[in-house]
Amino acid sequence: MSKVLVFGHKNPDTDAITSAIAYAYLLSEQGVEAEPVALGEANEETAYALDQFGYEAPRVVITVADETDIVALVDHNEAQQSVDDRDKVSIHSVVDHHRIANFETADPIFYLARPFGCTQTILYGLFQEAGIDIPEKLAGLMLSAIISDTLLLKSPTTTDRDKEVAAKLAELAGVNLDDYGIALLKSGTNVDNKDAEEIVDGDAKSFDMGDYKVRIGQINVVDIDDVLNRKDEMLEKMQGLSIDNGYDTFLLIVTNILTNDSEGLVVGKEELLPYVGQAFDAEVNDSQLPMPGVVSRKKQVVPVLTAKIEG
Amino acid sequence: MSKVLVFGHKNPDTDAITSAIAYAYLLSEQGVEAEPVALGEANEETAYALDQFGYEAPRVVITVADETDIVALVDHNEAQQSVDDRDKVSIHSVVDHHRIANFETADPIFYLARPFGCTQTILYGLFQEAGIDIPEKLAGLMLSAIISDTLLLKSPTTTDRDKEVAAKLAELAGVNLDDYGIALLKSGTNVDNKDAEEIVDGDAKSFDMGDYKVRIGQINVVDIDDVLNRKDEMLEKMQGLSIDNGYDTFLLIVTNILTNDSEGLVVGKEELLPYVGQAFDAEVNDSQLPMPGVVSRKKQVVPVLTAKIEG
Repeated sequence: MSKVLVFGHKNPDTDAITSAIAYAYLLSEQGVEAEPVALGEANEETAYALDQFGYEAPRVVITVADETDIVALVDHNEAQQSVDDRDKVSIHSVVDHHRIANFETADPIFYLARPFGCTQTILYGLFQEAGIDIPEKLAGLMLSAIISDTLLLKSPTTTDRDKEVAAKLAELAGVNLDDYGIALLKSGTNVDNKDAEEIVDGDAKSFDMGDYKVRIGQINVVDIDDVLNRKDEMLEKMQGLSIDNGYDTFLLIVTNILTNDSEGLVVGKEELLPYVGQAFDAEVNDSQLPMPGVVSRKKQVVPVLTAKIEG
Repeated sequence: MSKVLVFGHKNPDTDAITSAIAYAYLLSEQGVEAEPVALGEANEETAYALDQFGYEAPRVVITVADETDIVALVDHNEAQQSVDDRDKVSIHSVVDHHRIANFETADPIFYLARPFGCTQTILYGLFQEAGIDIPEKLAGLMLSAIISDTLLLKSPTTTDRDKEVAAKLAELAGVNLDDYGIALLKSGTNVDNKDAEEIVDGDAKSFDMGDYKVRIGQINVVDIDDVLNRKDEMLEKMQGLSIDNGYDTFLLIVTNILTNDSEGLVVGKEELLPYVGQAFDAEVNDSQLPMPGVVSRKKQVVPVLTAKIEG
């Protein structure tokens, strides 16, 4: 067996990148040669977390089959979110907290999904089960992902287990959960120095819903107007990306991490727009959609939109 | 949430039925209302195990949506092996030791697959993790499934963990592993009182391979001639079932549990038969295929046949 390459989804967020680091460390401690890599550059928030705890960003790969025949997936399973040549390698294992779709294997593997707010919460349990200690700096990195994915334990995706594990990791890492949490979240919210593509597509994922290809991006801010003031620029970019990549609709969720409300920007096929509105008991007006109380793409957006579109 | 119905695959074997019983027990102990059911009658071997440890066979269901909106799957995940109206209910969780395919959910769930020889070996770990004791009689039932799935720890699907867990369960159940194991396996091998459909289809499963629908049955015997003496009757039944159900090929694996060798019987599309032969470095002659050393459908048949057919 060649070295297992471990990676999270495309357009990596803090969980995708740090879970690859944590899982590769766990596998190595268990005698499996493993290296964390990433399917894209670290965003500002992730860079902040890596820097805080003294880690380098994992190297970015575009394909994997040229260097290994086996990979492990964290924080995703769907083919369209994974490495492009995944069908050329075998899958060692999967640790994930998303729905399961567009995923299959030829052989039985280790697959662990739990409906927790963050992949790191699951990985924490695997460290416990294996009786392997989590080093102080790794604990800080794992905590960063939980803070990021759950918006400091406030997103509806947050479970009691996330809270329990976050508290333990904060203690191991020697940081104050709330102080570090706010600092981390704020580090990712400066959109003024980001171009339109980074804002709309930096954290975007593709989903197959019925016969449609739906692109959903999300950007965290401390003031929604930071993005709405550049609305025309955003819409134009979303339209361009949709044409280039065949998206039938593109929804950008702009989330205020202090108030936990969002505003949506939407472009796409005329026939689909009413569904997008109905999914949130609202209407798409002038390409804009109010989404009060919505902060979780996974829990509050993907399931309702899938249900509406697949009817 | 209504009561969670827990079940294994269609054409249930001992693992499918007893894992439903064990997982429903575990869920109940964890405060989740759950009932084990089965997607078919218990076979002779399973009936023997249930009887040995004082259990009734779970009731058989054909559909589930008329009585619940949530189910848990054990020992399978593929849609075509599951209950027909699965798309009308949500899935609470999955515990399985097979490849993952034809499976998807709208929401994140608990999904645990491990490449062990038996689902019960995975469930044993969940009991440990939850700190819940396994009652003596349930331990005997769980052990029966491991013996059945691994042919008394001799199949190539057997892992060290299966051996370790089997030894612990035998101790908990107060039985001698080898003596009880041989008795259990023999209880399922009497084919003289079985009709052709029970023999060829009693333990059969369907697989999508490329554009083809492949049916693979397996029957354990202590003398392969017990089945080969009735070869014409078997082939006729396999042809009939293929026509009725649109199978492109039907392979029956006749396995001698004492020597760990098999002989295959094959019917199906002319274009497919060479692939079936090549998959086992042999030729299909007179509808018959030598399969020396092959005892595991999952490990020694499905992957090689899938690879050959999908090219």
